[in-house]
Amino acid sequence: MVQNGEDDRNEADEDVLDARRIGAIIEAAAAGDVAFLTELLEPLHAADIADLLEQVSRSERRDILRLWSGEIDGDILSEIDEGIREEVIESLSPDVLAEAVRELDTDDVVDILEDLEEPQKALILGALDSADRVAVERAMSYPDYSAGRLMQREVVVAPMHWTVGQAIDFMRGATHLPDQFYHVILVDPRMKPQAYVTLGRLLSSRREVRLSDIREESFRTVEATEPESDVAYLFNQYHLISCPVVDEDGRLVGVITIDDAMNVLDEEHEEDMLRLAGVDDEASLSDGVWDTLRGRLPWLLINLVTASLAAFVISLFEETISTIVVLAALMPIVASMGGNAGTQSLTVSVRALATRDLTSANAARFVRREAAVGAINGLVFAVILGAIATFAFGWPLLAVVIGLAMVINLLVAALAGVLVPLTLNRLKLDPALASGTFVTTMTDVVGFFAFLGLATLVLL
Amino acid sequence: MVQNGEDDRNEADEDVLDARRIGAIIEAAAAGDVAFLTELLEPLHAADIADLLEQVSRSERRDILRLWSGEIDGDILSEIDEGIREEVIESLSPDVLAEAVRELDTDDVVDILEDLEEPQKALILGALDSADRVAVERAMSYPDYSAGRLMQREVVVAPMHWTVGQAIDFMRGATHLPDQFYHVILVDPRMKPQAYVTLGRLLSSRREVRLSDIREESFRTVEATEPESDVAYLFNQYHLISCPVVDEDGRLVGVITIDDAMNVLDEEHEEDMLRLAGVDDEASLSDGVWDTLRGRLPWLLINLVTASLAAFVISLFEETISTIVVLAALMPIVASMGGNAGTQSLTVSVRALATRDLTSANAARFVRREAAVGAINGLVFAVILGAIATFAFGWPLLAVVIGLAMVINLLVAALAGVLVPLTLNRLKLDPALASGTFVTTMTDVVGFFAFLGLATLVLL
Repeated sequence: MVQNGEDDRNEADEDVLDARRIGAIIEAAAAGDVAFLTELLEPLHAADIADLLEQVSRSERRDILRLWSGEIDGDILSEIDEGIREEVIESLSPDVLAEAVRELDTDDVVDILEDLEEPQKALILGALDSADRVAVERAMSYPDYSAGRLMQREVVVAPMHWTVGQAIDFMRGATHLPDQFYHVILVDPRMKPQAYVTLGRLLSSRREVRLSDIREESFRTVEATEPESDVAYLFNQYHLISCPVVDEDGRLVGVITIDDAMNVLDEEHEEDMLRLAGVDDEASLSDGVWDTLRGRLPWLLINLVTASLAAFVISLFEETISTIVVLAALMPIVASMGGNAGTQSLTVSVRALATRDLTSANAARFVRREAAVGAINGLVFAVILGAIATFAFGWPLLAVVIGLAMVINLLVAALAGVLVPLTLNRLKLDPALASGTFVTTMTDVVGFFAFLGLATLVLL
Repeated sequence: MVQNGEDDRNEADEDVLDARRIGAIIEAAAAGDVAFLTELLEPLHAADIADLLEQVSRSERRDILRLWSGEIDGDILSEIDEGIREEVIESLSPDVLAEAVRELDTDDVVDILEDLEEPQKALILGALDSADRVAVERAMSYPDYSAGRLMQREVVVAPMHWTVGQAIDFMRGATHLPDQFYHVILVDPRMKPQAYVTLGRLLSSRREVRLSDIREESFRTVEATEPESDVAYLFNQYHLISCPVVDEDGRLVGVITIDDAMNVLDEEHEEDMLRLAGVDDEASLSDGVWDTLRGRLPWLLINLVTASLAAFVISLFEETISTIVVLAALMPIVASMGGNAGTQSLTVSVRALATRDLTSANAARFVRREAAVGAINGLVFAVILGAIATFAFGWPLLAVVIGLAMVINLLVAALAGVLVPLTLNRLKLDPALASGTFVTTMTDVVGFFAFLGLATLVLL
């Protein structure tokens, strides 16, 4: 069908990875039809081929790779999710692998190496020519998740005193320029970056203009040891396109481009989201059942402990419950409202810390706002639940108990939601990590204790 | 103190917005010391000045703006959070406002206009010169959150048949080039974009080379009416730096650059996180107590309804609870474990849908994986909780009840966590929206019903 319909479709449609094409690819691979498989895969972007390999099942992937692994290039390798990268690399012949890694910039090779085991690492390093191997090994000597790991070593530099014409002539004569570059970095004689010039300015200026006269007003560098999260923040905050990386002496060692920063930002978001939900942040969609379990079971175990704490609190009031059994039905409402309000505060706080909008300058005011919101929410729901309790059970004192418990719990929820991540942040821990469990434990325990405690005092 | 320490600090330190500088700025503003205030604010990047204005209190902001509003420029205006933008614009004299908006590219003016009320909108449109006003009004005619709103109209184009030399000469002679551009777009005589050339290739090629011979292999355009989320996905997936925007006839109408796409990606992440937590996605850190309440109360109201459903389920088993009161203490454990496991599945699913890694090609396999993980988690915790129940209460049948309830609830949690967002997605709704409430309601109701129902059958 896909073959017959070819004449009707224009070129743009051919590049799309939709369910129909995926189905056709799986069929062609299963049937061993190399020609058709190649015809289907050929026009796809490397990122889409990587997605395809991630989305099919393990056996389908094996079929595709058996027939087509000779065509896997560096771009596909660097797009592929780390969960299946090893599997794909294993399917490649040494020649294909060597060819693939040789065409990549050093930052992409580093990115691939980071997640591989020793034998595969050695295989890839061995495939590089010696200059690249040295560059990659030097990059690997920087700490994990640092700017040094993220940067490419291919840079375009010019002395401060050059003119536009000199820079253009130099670039025209250069044998190897980076795949991507957006600035010419101006350096002093000791290779310390002093400024940069955008390519747009360079192109629109006359040949005799000095580079130093058309440099960008804002100019920033990062040190190679800085964490990549700080780099991503810099790019996002100051709308950078590329940023020179320097060593501890301020000498240029590489450059980070916006696509890498965007990638880090995306990963940090994912990490925050997954950690808030209590999922291991290395979880991948292509993980099997066991890897998935390993990422989730530990958090559920922690939750079991904290839930048992709440159960213990309830057990203290068994006498009260056996006397007034309606309390058993009402108590989860108090806990659930607290859990939800706490999650609201927590999520807003974690996000604000991630974007660095929540700082020591406004933390106190932010805590006051959350407390006020918590208190008002508490009063609103105290009135609503009180009215319902009075109407449904005709028992005004029960209304007072549930109302008071609601005010207490929503206030505690709001405070816990903001103070837990602020404290983790001050302790230099990730504010998203495990704070969800902390906060809901607190609201469960406080909710049950306040409600049942007040009931014991007032109603018995 | 800051003044005295000046000599010790190097230039780089001066540009940093830290707590000390914020404190000094607030003091200077309160004291009416314009000179010192200017000295403190002058070296800061527009993005940091915007952050400062967001982080101080309303009265501190008023002090700063009273003294310094003459210095607010277009860059600061476009960085400022929409929550306080109106307030800042009100503080500006008509001259300052006109000057500020005139220096911006059209996409930034559109971004500012979108969130303003009518009188301020008219004021800003009036400040633009007529060509820009027409451009902005045309952009505003595109749907909200579409590529047309996001694009800048300033583009650099060249005919397909030009050479590198012709393109460079054209740019050198142009009176106004965009602030940012990364490609020269090659168009046919009807202004339909056919390809593009990166500035790096342009600079490194000889003058006589034809532009069409150095065009990029991959080239994509978007239609002006496409949603901005699709645009952000394209940039992220294909590592684009800029992307031409065309009208329904395929004619070039503008270009979107990566900084705008990165911004959209960041906002989409925020939206997902906040919606999962049941917080209005327009919430802003600079919102006051009332705006914050408005964004959260509705979600808590929905939660009250769903929590009442769970309470109703419990109330069906009041007789059972009053007979075996320990059930009241144990039942929140079953519900809480289900809620946690459901949130895990849900978050992974929402994230995978957002990154488009979860598609119709692998949805069935993904659901099977989640179900398997849910079932195994259920069995593991059934054994653990069963053992605890046997040990603590010496009652094997209670262990069977809690174990079975756990298996049922964790299986339902896993399925709900993935099926709810998949269903919302198929209905063209945001999978993050309200799915948290759906899923935890389901796990609460099922958890309580399974546990208390089984207890009634087996233990009574």
